[in-house]
Amino acid sequence: MPRFEMIAFDADDTLWHTERLYTHTQTKFKQLLAHYHRPEWIEERLYQTELQNLEHFGYGIKAFALSMIETAVELTEGRISGGDIQRIIGWAREMLAAEVELLEHVAETLAGLAERYLLMLLTKGDLLDQETKIERSGLALYFRYIEIVSDKRRASYERLLQRYDIAPERFLMVGNSLRSDILPVLAIGASAVYVPNEFTWLHEAAEPPAGQPGYYELEHLGLLPALLNDLEGR
Amino acid sequence: MPRFEMIAFDADDTLWHTERLYTHTQTKFKQLLAHYHRPEWIEERLYQTELQNLEHFGYGIKAFALSMIETAVELTEGRISGGDIQRIIGWAREMLAAEVELLEHVAETLAGLAERYLLMLLTKGDLLDQETKIERSGLALYFRYIEIVSDKRRASYERLLQRYDIAPERFLMVGNSLRSDILPVLAIGASAVYVPNEFTWLHEAAEPPAGQPGYYELEHLGLLPALLNDLEGR
Repeated sequence: MPRFEMIAFDADDTLWHTERLYTHTQTKFKQLLAHYHRPEWIEERLYQTELQNLEHFGYGIKAFALSMIETAVELTEGRISGGDIQRIIGWAREMLAAEVELLEHVAETLAGLAERYLLMLLTKGDLLDQETKIERSGLALYFRYIEIVSDKRRASYERLLQRYDIAPERFLMVGNSLRSDILPVLAIGASAVYVPNEFTWLHEAAEPPAGQPGYYELEHLGLLPALLNDLEGR
Repeated sequence: MPRFEMIAFDADDTLWHTERLYTHTQTKFKQLLAHYHRPEWIEERLYQTELQNLEHFGYGIKAFALSMIETAVELTEGRISGGDIQRIIGWAREMLAAEVELLEHVAETLAGLAERYLLMLLTKGDLLDQETKIERSGLALYFRYIEIVSDKRRASYERLLQRYDIAPERFLMVGNSLRSDILPVLAIGASAVYVPNEFTWLHEAAEPPAGQPGYYELEHLGLLPALLNDLEGR
């Protein structure tokens, strides 16, 4: 019996590029408001607005758009033009329709692992946006289960494992967010593989828990099968 | 063995009030733009914008807010003030934080049925918004399964029944939307109980399929146990 019964993968910036879409839009946003403020200050205010809105608006592109609009009104003291507001909403629509670009090694790694393990795709964000991305990614066939959740905290993982009747020591999570994919998973006694991505939202950052049991770090997803072979003692 | 193995309930305007929140906000929106246009025209333009945005933004309050902002910019030819844009975003936040008000007969009906049937809550909209409403409603304990989906079409129901391994003739759906809760359910050969609500979004309207096998209509949820007794031949 393999050591892990289920391997769950985060999606955004673990399987496909996402954050650079946000970064790119944020650059345009800073240009839009360049007459009013310094880019650093715009970025800081947008981040604070996003954090304040998280409780009600949650994650995802629609929440990001509403936070951009709110920040634009605030930073221009209401002088932002209707055309610029339209532009921001247009960016949101473009982001939602953007092509899904897989990260390197993803497709062949999943294809190989799907033959030996039960794979789950476990992501947070807007339901419709995530569903259409999964569909367009061409990866859906490798996943036995797809779960889109509103947040990834310790309690979310506990509920998930309970629902699928899986012991924590037989669960492995793979993702690029220390805050969402790694720390809460280690906290319940499961294992987690951190695959850093150069673009990661500040909010998802944390100190890597180096040396903690069950914690592994890989440079890219292509190295996962070899790590699993090691862990399984093959 | 009871005839139905699973009874699924829509949430918004089947278990608790929702659409009147939208209607109320829409009234404020029409007042906001009263200097520019007639209320009927504002309503018509907002509805068209919502329909156009459905594909990318999906259902829910964040999508509604973005559509209101877009409509306001369009109908004022960009002259909408930053303060008014802030006001619209504030309405969205209020809607997301609004108290969950149950419809009549809901709590006692669910409590009774939960003893005899497997109950599912099956709703569409924003993930986080629906989750917090379910939590605040106090009804979560009656539902064995909770599914939040991005759309309720024929294929969504087919996938759902397949996943839970339930034959269509043993599935009953209860809801206030002919378009989402009733017609696609009858189309796959399952049964559906339509409980009309005085506030129902135009987009969810359709012709009641009177006389179609498996179709039932009730004035309120309190009448459901008696209908089930009839159908079960008790």
